[in-house]
Amino acid sequence: MRESYDSHGAELAAFTNRLADLARLAEGAMNRATTAVVAGDAELARTVVAEEGTIVALHHRLDEEAVEMLAELRPVAGDLRTIVAGLRMSADLARMGAMARHVAELVPRMAPRPALPPVVLPTVAAMGETAQRLMAKVRAAMARHDTEAAYELDRDDDEMDRLVSSLYRDLLCADHGLDVEAVLELTLLGRYYERFADHAVSLARRVLFQAGAAG
Amino acid sequence: MRESYDSHGAELAAFTNRLADLARLAEGAMNRATTAVVAGDAELARTVVAEEGTIVALHHRLDEEAVEMLAELRPVAGDLRTIVAGLRMSADLARMGAMARHVAELVPRMAPRPALPPVVLPTVAAMGETAQRLMAKVRAAMARHDTEAAYELDRDDDEMDRLVSSLYRDLLCADHGLDVEAVLELTLLGRYYERFADHAVSLARRVLFQAGAAG
Repeated sequence: MRESYDSHGAELAAFTNRLADLARLAEGAMNRATTAVVAGDAELARTVVAEEGTIVALHHRLDEEAVEMLAELRPVAGDLRTIVAGLRMSADLARMGAMARHVAELVPRMAPRPALPPVVLPTVAAMGETAQRLMAKVRAAMARHDTEAAYELDRDDDEMDRLVSSLYRDLLCADHGLDVEAVLELTLLGRYYERFADHAVSLARRVLFQAGAAG
Repeated sequence: MRESYDSHGAELAAFTNRLADLARLAEGAMNRATTAVVAGDAELARTVVAEEGTIVALHHRLDEEAVEMLAELRPVAGDLRTIVAGLRMSADLARMGAMARHVAELVPRMAPRPALPPVVLPTVAAMGETAQRLMAKVRAAMARHDTEAAYELDRDDDEMDRLVSSLYRDLLCADHGLDVEAVLELTLLGRYYERFADHAVSLARRVLFQAGAAG
């Protein structure tokens, strides 16, 4: 753990642990959302949608704690950076939970058709894997204040951008036989993964900010 | 102006004024982006894209100032709320600037076709008007700490949701003769306006938080 915790050890450690919990919840939600759309599992999709409430509640709790700590601990230097970055990370993670919900909602919206037509299935599965890899690196970077892992994330984000472009190219092929509604829904699906990755990059930047390595 | 400014008057007033500048920039960018797509004005679209840099730079400057004030002024109560809310509002406004850029980028991506096919033109124009109305209310709420205006925003956000659904319904009509690429681009366009409105609602919530009326 960080040196600067010495000053307000318990509160900051609890805050950081809860932020790690929120990251785990967001990662789990997106993994299950991907499984739900790839397998067309309506029951699993419902679970992801229902469990977003837990993510939102934890996000609000973290925000309240951050403001309380700013008021009561009057933190400076490293502690201040940890709290300010935590406020922003909490917002990113809540948005990532919302992206997971949006992905899961594809299953009922496409019903009674399967959520994913075969032509885009491999690409969406790869997008889910890339999202998982991004989150694993973000969580490692958060836990160890690992600036190397944070810098590495850009590569996985590039991979996500490539996959989303590939999904859009699949959709633009005239011979896929998809109806307009499917094109519309799958376009939004690509956007949700793209934004999930953007938030992961934003989280990595916060880790660098906490470490004093960047703004 | 607020009572609590008395304690650290100059810094906080300058910060609040710059936040208002950022809100004006984001509003102007979206208005011009809408004009550019509705009129198919490639030159205006280029301007919107180029000027996003100004928005990003001001957002970063506000973030730095907020962290400096937290460290140096050791604010409490109302001042602390103003700064924390300002940090979040700065992030929302930067994202709104990015949405304006995305809208403007539709013009070159659809070229040499007109940016908007006639079937969706009235809906997109109405989306632009709703975005403008939302931002006018947000800026009034920010300037006067007007909680009424902040609460009112939900109605305009509902209107935006209705318009986006209407755009999607237009796209789902089998007889519009649009190619798949147009459907894909116009789906994303709807999403950009939807997110712009979401950020406006988020800004209104920050105004309520500043006023101590809500989290």
